[in-house]
Amino acid sequence: MLIVMKADATERETMEVVRIVTELGLRAHPLPGAQRTAIGITGNQGAVDASRFENMPGVAEAIRVSKPYKLISLDLRPEKTVVRVGGDAAIGGDELAIIAGPCAIESRAQAFAIAEAVRRSGARFFRGGAYKPRTSPYAFQGLGEEGLKILAEVREVYGLKIVTEAMDEAGIDLVERYGDMIQLGARNMQNFSLLRRAGRSHLPVLLKRGLAATLDEWLLAAEYIMSEGNYNVVLCERGIRTFSQHTRNTLDLAAIPAVRRISHLPVIIDPSHGTGKNYMVTPLARAGVAVGADGLIVEIHDQPEQALCDGAQALTFQQYEQMVAEVRAIHDVITPAMVK
Amino acid sequence: MLIVMKADATERETMEVVRIVTELGLRAHPLPGAQRTAIGITGNQGAVDASRFENMPGVAEAIRVSKPYKLISLDLRPEKTVVRVGGDAAIGGDELAIIAGPCAIESRAQAFAIAEAVRRSGARFFRGGAYKPRTSPYAFQGLGEEGLKILAEVREVYGLKIVTEAMDEAGIDLVERYGDMIQLGARNMQNFSLLRRAGRSHLPVLLKRGLAATLDEWLLAAEYIMSEGNYNVVLCERGIRTFSQHTRNTLDLAAIPAVRRISHLPVIIDPSHGTGKNYMVTPLARAGVAVGADGLIVEIHDQPEQALCDGAQALTFQQYEQMVAEVRAIHDVITPAMVK
Amino acid sequence: MLIVMKADATERETMEVVRIVTELGLRAHPLPGAQRTAIGITGNQGAVDASRFENMPGVAEAIRVSKPYKLISLDLRPEKTVVRVGGDAAIGGDELAIIAGPCAIESRAQAFAIAEAVRRSGARFFRGGAYKPRTSPYAFQGLGEEGLKILAEVREVYGLKIVTEAMDEAGIDLVERYGDMIQLGARNMQNFSLLRRAGRSHLPVLLKRGLAATLDEWLLAAEYIMSEGNYNVVLCERGIRTFSQHTRNTLDLAAIPAVRRISHLPVIIDPSHGTGKNYMVTPLARAGVAVGADGLIVEIHDQPEQALCDGAQALTFQQYEQMVAEVRAIHDVITPAMVK
Amino acid sequence: MLIVMKADATERETMEVVRIVTELGLRAHPLPGAQRTAIGITGNQGAVDASRFENMPGVAEAIRVSKPYKLISLDLRPEKTVVRVGGDAAIGGDELAIIAGPCAIESRAQAFAIAEAVRRSGARFFRGGAYKPRTSPYAFQGLGEEGLKILAEVREVYGLKIVTEAMDEAGIDLVERYGDMIQLGARNMQNFSLLRRAGRSHLPVLLKRGLAATLDEWLLAAEYIMSEGNYNVVLCERGIRTFSQHTRNTLDLAAIPAVRRISHLPVIIDPSHGTGKNYMVTPLARAGVAVGADGLIVEIHDQPEQALCDGAQALTFQQYEQMVAEVRAIHDVITPAMVK
Repeated sequence: MLIVMKADATERETMEVVRIVTELGLRAHPLPGAQRTAIGITGNQGAVDASRFENMPGVAEAIRVSKPYKLISLDLRPEKTVVRVGGDAAIGGDELAIIAGPCAIESRAQAFAIAEAVRRSGARFFRGGAYKPRTSPYAFQGLGEEGLKILAEVREVYGLKIVTEAMDEAGIDLVERYGDMIQLGARNMQNFSLLRRAGRSHLPVLLKRGLAATLDEWLLAAEYIMSEGNYNVVLCERGIRTFSQHTRNTLDLAAIPAVRRISHLPVIIDPSHGTGKNYMVTPLARAGVAVGADGLIVEIHDQPEQALCDGAQALTFQQYEQMVAEVRAIHDVITPAMVK
Repeated sequence: MLIVMKADATERETMEVVRIVTELGLRAHPLPGAQRTAIGITGNQGAVDASRFENMPGVAEAIRVSKPYKLISLDLRPEKTVVRVGGDAAIGGDELAIIAGPCAIESRAQAFAIAEAVRRSGARFFRGGAYKPRTSPYAFQGLGEEGLKILAEVREVYGLKIVTEAMDEAGIDLVERYGDMIQLGARNMQNFSLLRRAGRSHLPVLLKRGLAATLDEWLLAAEYIMSEGNYNVVLCERGIRTFSQHTRNTLDLAAIPAVRRISHLPVIIDPSHGTGKNYMVTPLARAGVAVGADGLIVEIHDQPEQALCDGAQALTFQQYEQMVAEVRAIHDVITPAMVK
Repeated sequence: MLIVMKADATERETMEVVRIVTELGLRAHPLPGAQRTAIGITGNQGAVDASRFENMPGVAEAIRVSKPYKLISLDLRPEKTVVRVGGDAAIGGDELAIIAGPCAIESRAQAFAIAEAVRRSGARFFRGGAYKPRTSPYAFQGLGEEGLKILAEVREVYGLKIVTEAMDEAGIDLVERYGDMIQLGARNMQNFSLLRRAGRSHLPVLLKRGLAATLDEWLLAAEYIMSEGNYNVVLCERGIRTFSQHTRNTLDLAAIPAVRRISHLPVIIDPSHGTGKNYMVTPLARAGVAVGADGLIVEIHDQPEQALCDGAQALTFQQYEQMVAEVRAIHDVITPAMVK
Repeated sequence: MLIVMKADATERETMEVVRIVTELGLRAHPLPGAQRTAIGITGNQGAVDASRFENMPGVAEAIRVSKPYKLISLDLRPEKTVVRVGGDAAIGGDELAIIAGPCAIESRAQAFAIAEAVRRSGARFFRGGAYKPRTSPYAFQGLGEEGLKILAEVREVYGLKIVTEAMDEAGIDLVERYGDMIQLGARNMQNFSLLRRAGRSHLPVLLKRGLAATLDEWLLAAEYIMSEGNYNVVLCERGIRTFSQHTRNTLDLAAIPAVRRISHLPVIIDPSHGTGKNYMVTPLARAGVAVGADGLIVEIHDQPEQALCDGAQALTFQQYEQMVAEVRAIHDVITPAMVK
């Protein structure tokens, strides 16, 4: 059930609907929009009685939701959500969001050298893993909390917003302490306990698409987060697993317009994991911006050949600067009408 | 590094090697085999000095491991591991292991009715989810601890071993309290924090292959568990995600001989999730036994059309009995030489 | 439209229906079955008027077909088709059909040595490519007509039925001259001109599933052949292309029961191309028989390591004999009820 | 073997090398480039003796080729090939090539209405199928030669170059009579007899990537064509088959930079088949141009909802005009350096 408030409904009227929903033992998710507020209802087993709400003051209509998702849907919020990160930065607005940094934080010196380049490029977000999900238990697993502390310093010194991965519930506690945005990785896209925990965080969440996730599964993973009350979710297409082996993954750019058609959530692309090859990152970054993504997350390194993880896909600083120039040139000719 | 003890090495000599490994700040994993004991070493950053061990009493040889896995490997243990479950049952031995039960525990009555059928068939293991990983946050998520208590009763009454899924670390605590074997689902195959926690459990682990997992990724997920000291891992092929849509997943039976060639771990199949269609479960169960699997895990239900989850793939009792008869007939003509 | 004749309809009555269909400018496909004859009608643009036929003598009913296929369907013929090959051999009957031989005919000596082993095993069919579809234009492309002549000699000397691939229409002319069954390869499964030509042949056709073919596409490829009047089609599952790289292709054994549920055509498996690895061929052959396939096509070679193509998947004679023993043991315990 | 001529080698010196190659029973493929001519040699079983050529006048070096392809390779021709079509149009040059038209030619009126819109947009190429590869034998198969005659009229009246599919060797004969460029479809990408026939045509060839084709298989299909002497091949990425079902196919844009890195052949994209959905065509067209494609082939229709095939993906004229404007805007900011 979805309750759409009238354009001129008062906050009090909205709160009254919320109160009734809660009284029924259900959960109300009021999402204010540009034109009107809508209230998603979750927690019901069967259908909710629409007539209970339709005649309440300020209510425009009560809509039964037939799709598997409610809160991520354009039905709930017809305009795109702008997700605020770290106070004064945003993803989903007019500006192209660029999140850049190393695969893993390796040392303070490495992080600072890279952050310097990120700031110089005008990007607002710094990425870097302190906890790395590695296929082998014997591979470098990240610096842990020490890495998070370095990230917090990067924020302090360079004013960049910190986007970093949490692999478990304890990890979210730590990212909440040191970072600005929780990244949930492709392998954890259906780690439902983790999604629920992220849904109870005050931080925005960057939710990567799973390697074999359908569009619905991905959107429902976002729905898990939102159903707990955290509406600040950014989706990230990072490549799917296919038979094709000339890239590490197959970047599915059609996912961007597909998401747009269903959801108000911003969506960005990861051309680094999406290709796994240095020379492909920039062309695919251009393509991602051209297709209408709200931003991109990209791996860079001061010494790619010595990176402790994923060096093969990291851009050098020079390549990165060139990429930023190219994607901005593309972004400048993309009009809002194109990517609606 | 892998240290192979002589056939006549004493326990004391083995323990001495373990002591030295530990002294070096590394971890020793002694795995006794039919002919000899081998000791896997993990925790090293670079190469371990072989000469340090080669002249110790009882040591046959020290082998550098070039593959990404150590403990799951036939190099460490040339004969198949028999995983004991709940004391007197086993997977990986001569007997075909049959794990049967509902997708989800729905009620005491449902569980008991099904357990009755499972016992009648001669199967030793009962499956049933108390915590269900569901694509949608609004779908039935299982009875939780109440479901586990029902499972514990089933064990008490029917003497069946309980195999049930844990979706997070708290869930493992609970399965340890009520069950006999921890099931880790396909979506959590690369939930590395969960794998590590399972690696510290005293219970054996049933590790399902991820929907998009390569053979190496799956084996390395098992390696994660074993590297923490729990060597009782059973692998389960449950279908991969492909373009082919006439089944829910594509059951990759070639994975069975592929695992056999590399690993000593037992491997079973799940023809229920592997096909998602009732009428295909039995033929694929037959195929799985014919290809050499150590057992199978199958969903049955007293009233499939009313099941709260996955009813479309659940066998009726009659179909299940027929399936058991058929797979046993196949198993009887399979000789050890065929599946070595 | 599908016209089902009464069980006691006379041949004359059937022919009268065929005459009327033809008069309407359409094509009639009478398929006699155990209980009754049914007549498929193709060539119509829109719906055919059922009333035109329903009152004709001998007609039981006229059924509108809503599925995309007509002639391959169990609706047309409820019992499995037995495809006769070379007069006295068959695929789809009680006996397990074994088609064995080299990937490519390399020489008379090689073909004869292998044919000797095939005959010794009791198999009735000999495979061997004279025209090879090779990924590279610079790879060995087969001996051409010379190879077909060798195959004809093999038939003469060993009494084996010759199954061999045609890659184009001229190739079918040649196979018709020298062979007993036309093999259409996976890469040509949607070469519709070739399918139509095969549909006008008097020889039975072995139609391999394409690497990326859905069940419907595969069945409709068979429908192409049948719509031209050749009803002797055997389907062959030979593995699909997936992300999984531990095998050359992923053998989709669920395709066997899936075909059974829709079509009366026999279906066999190719464990050689389906795995691409020698050590997997026999286990998957066992699985294929257990799942209910009507037979298998397998590559063997007297000197696999010197084979001009696909040596890695060819069985030695000894392995082949062992495989035949194993699949027959499985086949013996499979009852008709299991694979219905 | 690949023989690189000196920059100042004379035509006579090149011809002398060709003569010697031919004398050896091999085939010489001289490809003139901006800086120098190189001569590919095919037809050899083993290695060719380099010393035979290295001291000939005008020869810079003789290079052994270790990769599976020779003629498509940047080793043979370091700069991109510009493929001339119909005399005065080209694909692979500075101008973005736009090929537009209906899926199938349905009537003269339809073709002319659409051609009008194509010419108005400034595009140089008209597409339209006279022979349609359809999954079902009962679906509309195209107008055949009548359709080709309509296409020839379109060329006459509108000055557009005709790109149209041939499904078999007889079809190529006809396209040679009526069209300007032979399109080989995804399903025929490994129809090797057809590739060879196209290789003997005087018309340029548009070679679509197969649904399950790896990069190497695709490039080797082009190599088949070129090895017969036709060097005018344009590659076309049109989407691959994956598990992902929110699009008809998954457009693999990383294939563009992947091709660039290996081959001198131009490469375009097909956002219509690549997505199968009207609303995705334009965003993916933009992405394809941004990633560096040399052009695109797109389906448009005057009445998409009444199209005899693929109406769901056809753009209306208005959408098409908008798309052309958008891709040109992107193309204008793409510099040669970006897509090298």
